Amino acid sequence: MPALRVDLFAGRTIEQKRELAQALTEACVKTLGVSPGSVDIIFNDVERHDWATAGKLWSDDTKPAPPPAS
Amino acid sequence: MPALRVDLFAGRTIEQKRELAQALTEACVKTLGVSPGSVDIIFNDVERHDWATAGKLWSDDTKPAPPPAS
Amino acid sequence: MPALRVDLFAGRTIEQKRELAQALTEACVKTLGVSPGSVDIIFNDVERHDWATAGKLWSDDTKPAPPPAS
Amino acid sequence: MPALRVDLFAGRTIEQKRELAQALTEACVKTLGVSPGSVDIIFNDVERHDWATAGKLWSDDTKPAPPPAS
Amino acid sequence: MPALRVDLFAGRTIEQKRELAQALTEACVKTLGVSPGSVDIIFNDVERHDWATAGKLWSDDTKPAPPPAS
Amino acid sequence: MPALRVDLFAGRTIEQKRELAQALTEACVKTLGVSPGSVDIIFNDVERHDWATAGKLWSDDTKPAPPPAS
Repeated sequence: MPALRVDLFAGRTIEQKRELAQALTEACVKTLGVSPGSVDIIFNDVERHDWATAGKLWSDDTKPAPPPAS
Repeated sequence: MPALRVDLFAGRTIEQKRELAQALTEACVKTLGVSPGSVDIIFNDVERHDWATAGKLWSDDTKPAPPPAS
Repeated sequence: MPALRVDLFAGRTIEQKRELAQALTEACVKTLGVSPGSVDIIFNDVERHDWATAGKLWSDDTKPAPPPAS
Repeated sequence: MPALRVDLFAGRTIEQKRELAQALTEACVKTLGVSPGSVDIIFNDVERHDWATAGKLWSDDTKPAPPPAS
Repeated sequence: MPALRVDLFAGRTIEQKRELAQALTEACVKTLGVSPGSVDIIFNDVERHDWATAGKLWSDDTKPAPPPAS
Repeated sequence: MPALRVDLFAGRTIEQKRELAQALTEACVKTLGVSPGSVDIIFNDVERHDWATAGKLWSDDTKPAPPPAS
């Protein structure tokens, strides 16, 4: 309460997931007024050949990935 | 990429969801280095009689809710 | 840990969900050795026009429902 | 086997879901070689204020929707 | 919009997923009138020991699989 | 109808899943009056570094696990 499921491309490090879990939890605490302990998150790694947009697997995408937003 | 599904108790306002969507998206952008446009979020309202912990529906919980974390 | 999502046809009573939540939780406690408090369940009512098997919506099913297993 | 969950904007008619269920089932039958009866589909209506992309609720989108692909 | 999650038995080839992604996307485009780029699909491989019907794991099924529908 | 998705920590044996599948199915049959064959269950193993509560990955939890409920 709340419970989050996060589908993301495989390859993220545990450190990234650690930071993301903290940041997502803080986002819930601030906007919903819940206690941190009530926030439950599951990460689900998805391979690029298991994710498709516009009918095309991401593993078939030959365009270079966009630069990170920074 | 990523895609988030957020199960939360029904009763949140659209304004709360608006703020939560922004905060969750920022959390993904900062920790994963993705662009904001790649973050997709679905909120799923769950009634208290449709959520159970420890074998008990939350609608049957007679204890007062804990105060918000602030 | 575990977290269960239960998709079921809309129309079940809260009493049925209450009993089901208890029974599912006991099943987890007995077979996994977890504490009851670690079992989290979300029920998701699905209308018959939102569920399809064999390419056919259940709301279009003209056959009488099978008798309950008893 | 397979089981599909389809999140889509609320507002689709039952006739559209009926056709979509048929078309999705046929797609599975043709490409996976399964029998139609093994394909199970659940539709989940999502209100525009419950879906966000790029940190913005779709109900806040003031741009006109793109024309259908036809 | 729409977003599809497809649970299917592990063992499908990437070529099968590629074809399935195309076919599912076309099904959405035709029946919902959306643009191909709005269709997002995630495949989730499920091992036979992680899928149960009638209380029995599919990995325990000793009956030969039915022939493909063709 | 119903369809259950069970997220649980990775490491459970197939024997545990076999028993759990039976127990969950019986729970549905008894409380909902459905036939066993209508109960479909998918187990989803989640690594401890993919599950977070209170903003902390379970793999970072240094406290000993609580004893099983028995």
